[in-house]
Amino acid sequence: MNVVSTVDPRDGRRRATDLTETDESRLEAIAGQASRAARWLSGLGRLGRAEMLDAIAASLESRRVDLVAAAEAETGLSDARLDQELTRAAVQFRMFGDVLRDGGYIEAAIDHAADTPLGRGPDLRRMLVPLGSVAVFGASNFPFAFSVAGGDTASALAAGCPTVLKAHPSHPLTSHASAEAIGSAVRDMDGPDGVIAIVYGEQAGRSLVRHPTICAAALTGSVGAARAIQAAIDERADPIPFYAELSSVNPIVVLPGAAVDRGDQIAEGLFTSFTGSAGQLCTKPGLAFVPSDPGGEHLVDALRGRIASAGGAVLLNERIRDAYENQAAAFERAGARVSARSQVHPGAGFTVAPTLLEVGLPGLTAEIADECFGPLMVVVRYRDVAELDAVLATVPPSLTGSIHRGPGDDAGIVRGLVELLAARSGRIVFDGYPTGVRVSWAQHHGGLWPSTNAVHTSVGATSIRRFLRPLAWQDAPEWILPEELRDEYTAIPRRVDGRLESGVQ
Amino acid sequence: MNVVSTVDPRDGRRRATDLTETDESRLEAIAGQASRAARWLSGLGRLGRAEMLDAIAASLESRRVDLVAAAEAETGLSDARLDQELTRAAVQFRMFGDVLRDGGYIEAAIDHAADTPLGRGPDLRRMLVPLGSVAVFGASNFPFAFSVAGGDTASALAAGCPTVLKAHPSHPLTSHASAEAIGSAVRDMDGPDGVIAIVYGEQAGRSLVRHPTICAAALTGSVGAARAIQAAIDERADPIPFYAELSSVNPIVVLPGAAVDRGDQIAEGLFTSFTGSAGQLCTKPGLAFVPSDPGGEHLVDALRGRIASAGGAVLLNERIRDAYENQAAAFERAGARVSARSQVHPGAGFTVAPTLLEVGLPGLTAEIADECFGPLMVVVRYRDVAELDAVLATVPPSLTGSIHRGPGDDAGIVRGLVELLAARSGRIVFDGYPTGVRVSWAQHHGGLWPSTNAVHTSVGATSIRRFLRPLAWQDAPEWILPEELRDEYTAIPRRVDGRLESGVQ
Repeated sequence: MNVVSTVDPRDGRRRATDLTETDESRLEAIAGQASRAARWLSGLGRLGRAEMLDAIAASLESRRVDLVAAAEAETGLSDARLDQELTRAAVQFRMFGDVLRDGGYIEAAIDHAADTPLGRGPDLRRMLVPLGSVAVFGASNFPFAFSVAGGDTASALAAGCPTVLKAHPSHPLTSHASAEAIGSAVRDMDGPDGVIAIVYGEQAGRSLVRHPTICAAALTGSVGAARAIQAAIDERADPIPFYAELSSVNPIVVLPGAAVDRGDQIAEGLFTSFTGSAGQLCTKPGLAFVPSDPGGEHLVDALRGRIASAGGAVLLNERIRDAYENQAAAFERAGARVSARSQVHPGAGFTVAPTLLEVGLPGLTAEIADECFGPLMVVVRYRDVAELDAVLATVPPSLTGSIHRGPGDDAGIVRGLVELLAARSGRIVFDGYPTGVRVSWAQHHGGLWPSTNAVHTSVGATSIRRFLRPLAWQDAPEWILPEELRDEYTAIPRRVDGRLESGVQ
Repeated sequence: MNVVSTVDPRDGRRRATDLTETDESRLEAIAGQASRAARWLSGLGRLGRAEMLDAIAASLESRRVDLVAAAEAETGLSDARLDQELTRAAVQFRMFGDVLRDGGYIEAAIDHAADTPLGRGPDLRRMLVPLGSVAVFGASNFPFAFSVAGGDTASALAAGCPTVLKAHPSHPLTSHASAEAIGSAVRDMDGPDGVIAIVYGEQAGRSLVRHPTICAAALTGSVGAARAIQAAIDERADPIPFYAELSSVNPIVVLPGAAVDRGDQIAEGLFTSFTGSAGQLCTKPGLAFVPSDPGGEHLVDALRGRIASAGGAVLLNERIRDAYENQAAAFERAGARVSARSQVHPGAGFTVAPTLLEVGLPGLTAEIADECFGPLMVVVRYRDVAELDAVLATVPPSLTGSIHRGPGDDAGIVRGLVELLAARSGRIVFDGYPTGVRVSWAQHHGGLWPSTNAVHTSVGATSIRRFLRPLAWQDAPEWILPEELRDEYTAIPRRVDGRLESGVQ
C-alpha cells in the first residue's frame, strides 16, 4: 500500500505519514458504511441533525490548537488566517443547524385534492429528501472551510447525506484530524461509522465517483480536476450531479470618480485582497480596471509602493508554485509589463513574489484575462469608460464582478457596467472586494462556467439544495407521511394550496 | 433544403409540408433573435410575463379546433384526449402566471450588514435570475403539453428565458401551429421575434445545443435521445445544464387485501392506465405486482377480459411501433407469457395489439423489468409480500411507484414497501394510478436515472427552477437593486435576515 506523504511548503520537505492510499477493498467498505449510515442520519430528523451539526462545530473548536497547527505545517498559511478559517468552518456547521431548524429548505408543499380544469386533482404533497451518499473533493486553498470540515460536507450532512471526502494531497494530516473531529462528534451521539469518511489518493477519488452508491459529487478545484472527475463520472451507467467550483478572474472596475475620491484606500483594499492567503483564493481579484488619468495613476502608484515593500508569499505546493510562475511569465509574454514585484529571498520552500502587472487597452488579450492562482493582479488602464463595455465581455465568467464608484461617476454608466457584470458573474460587489465571502442566507458563490456550473451555490444556506431531490406523495394516508407534510404540522414554512405559510416556531 | 414531411399514423401515409429543415444560417439568425429577446422578457418584469403567459394560454385556446385537428392527423390520438391535452397546456401557462405573481420562485433573500463571528458582514441580497436562451426538445407523446406549447416552454418563458424548440419529427405541423399561437400572443404585446422559435431536423437540434448562446437544454424523450444530446453538449467548451425526462417502468404493487377488496375496480384502473393514449405515457405502469391467490387471480381475470375485448391501438410512428413489437417479443423470449392480447385487424398504419404479459417470481428478469413504450403491461405474480423487497430493488428507478392497500394489509408491510419505492421513485401513489399527472405546486415529475436526472422536476410550479440561476448583490445602492430586493418591497415571499416573510399581496 502506498504511504501518504506530506510536505511543509515553507521548506519543501516531504515526510511520510501513518496514512496509506485507499485501496479498492477499503473503498468498498467505506461506501457500504456510508450507505448504511443514511438511515441513521434520516432517523435523526431535521432537529437531530441540527444538534449533530452543532456538536461537530463544538468538536472542531475544541481541537482548534491542534487543527490549526496541523494546517499551518501543511499549508504555510498564517496562524491568524487558519484560526479564522476554523471559526468559519464552525460557523458553517452552525448555520446549517439554523437552516434545519427553520425547515424552509425542504420546500414542503401540500396541494389538497381539488376540482381542476383537468378533472379531480389528487392530494399531492412534496418535499425535498436526501439524495444519498455524496463524494466531496477537498480544495487546495482552504484546509478547513472548503475541505473535510468544509461547506460541502456541512451542507451534505445537513441534507442527510453521508459524505465521503477525497482528501487534498497537500493536507492529509489536517484532513485526517478534521475527519476525526467530525467522527468523534458523531460517535458521541451513538452515530455509526460511515456518516463521514475519508479516502486518500487520486485513484481512490476516481473509484469513488464511479461507485454505484455515490449519488452526487462536489469539487472546489481547477478546471482540469473537474474534467478528470467528470470523465470518471461519465464511465457510470447512471449520470450523477457534479457540482464544481472552479476558476475565476473576478474583475474589479474602478471608476474615475472613485480613484479621485479614495485612491489610497482602494490601493490598500486591492493589495490586501489579491495578496491575502498568498492570493490562493477563488475570489482573488485578477483584473483591476483603473483609469489612465491622474487619479488612476495615484492609485496605481500607491499599489506599487505596497507591493515593493511586501515580502514573499508561500504557495501550497510545487505544482501551484510552478503554475504561478508559468502563468505570470505567459502574461508577460502576452504583453503585460511588470508594474511592481516584491523582493523575495530565495529559499527551499514554495515562496513566490507578489506581482502587479499592467496593461493598457486594447492590450488585454484572452491570455491575460485568465486566472493566475497566487498573489498576482493585472491592472488594466483605460482612457474612457466607454471602452469597458467591449472589454468586459471578453473576460471569462467569474464568481464575482466588482465596481467602485465615486461622487463624479454617472449613474447611467454604473447601471450599464453592472448589467454587463451581472450577465457574467454570480455576485456583484459595490465599493468593496470579492474576497471574504460572507456565510449567510443570501450568499451566492457560483457563476457561469468556468466559475461553476451555474445553477447552484457552494456557499451559504441554499447550497444544501445540491444534495436534495424532490419526492411527492399522492393520496397518501396521513400516518405514512413525514411529519412535515401532515396537515397539522405548522412549525416550518410550507406552501399549502399555492399559498406560502411562513411557519410558527 | 430538405423538406419536412408528416405522416398520419392511422394509415402510415407520408406527405410533404411547406416546412424545411433548419439550416445553419437560419439557426444562427434564430439564436441571435433569441438572445436579443431576453432583454424584452426581462423588461416585462414578473407581472408582465404573467400577462404574457395568460395571453399565450388564451391564444392556444382560441385556436383549439385547428390545433386539435392538426395533432389528430399527426398522432392518431383521439379528439377527446387531444382536447384535454390542449387544456392542460393552457393550464400550465396559467399556472406559471400564478407562480410569477406569487414571486416566491425567485427565492429573494436579504441579509443586512451585521457583525458576525467572522467580522463585519456586508449587506447581501440574492435572487434567482433567468439563465438565458433555452433549447427544448419536444416529446413524441404529447404534441401540446410536452412539446412546443408544453411545460418546458412555459417554465422557461416564465423564468424569462427565450426558448428555441426542436420540433418532434412526428408532429411538425402541430409544432408550427403551436409556435404560431404563442408567437401571435407575443406580437400582440409588441414582443420581438425570438421569444419563441422553432427548428426542424436532427442536425439543427445538435447545432442548437452546441450554440454558444444556449444556456440550458431540456428533453422529454428516450435514453438514446438524451445520450445523443449530451454528446453534442459535451462538444461545447462550457458545459450547460441538461434536464432530461426519460424512461420509466412505474411499478404498481397490489397487496392481497386490496385485490380481495376491489379486484374488479383495480383491473379497470390498470387497464385504463396502461392502454390510455396507446400506452405512450412516461407514467404508464409497466409492471403490476399481483398476488398468486384467488383475489389476485380474480383481478387478473378481469384484466384479461378487458384486454381481449379491446381494439388495436395506434402508435405514433414506425420507429415506436417497431420498438414496441421488438420489446414485447424480447419480454416473451425472457420468459414472460402472454396473458391476454387484444384482436387487431391489420391495417396500413402503426396499429398494435394491447398486451398483458405475465410472469411468476422469481421469473422477473432485468430484461422484463424494462420500459416498453406502448400498451403493454407485465403482471408479476407473487406468493408472499416478503418476496417483493428483493424484487423491487431490481426494478430500475422510475418516475413513480404505486401501492394498493386493502383492509387486511399490514401497516408495517405498507411502510416497508413505501420506503423501498420512495428510494427509487419521484412520486409515490396510494390506491391510484401513475398516469394523469396533476399540474400544481406540489407536483414532482422526476426521479433517479434513467427516469430523469434526479434533482429537478419537469412538471409543476417548481420546474421553473431549472432555468434560473442565483445572483447576489453586495453592498449595492438601493437604486440599482431589482425592486424585489429593496427593503420596502413586501409583495412577495422573502427571507430577510434569515426569517421567511410570506409576502403581503
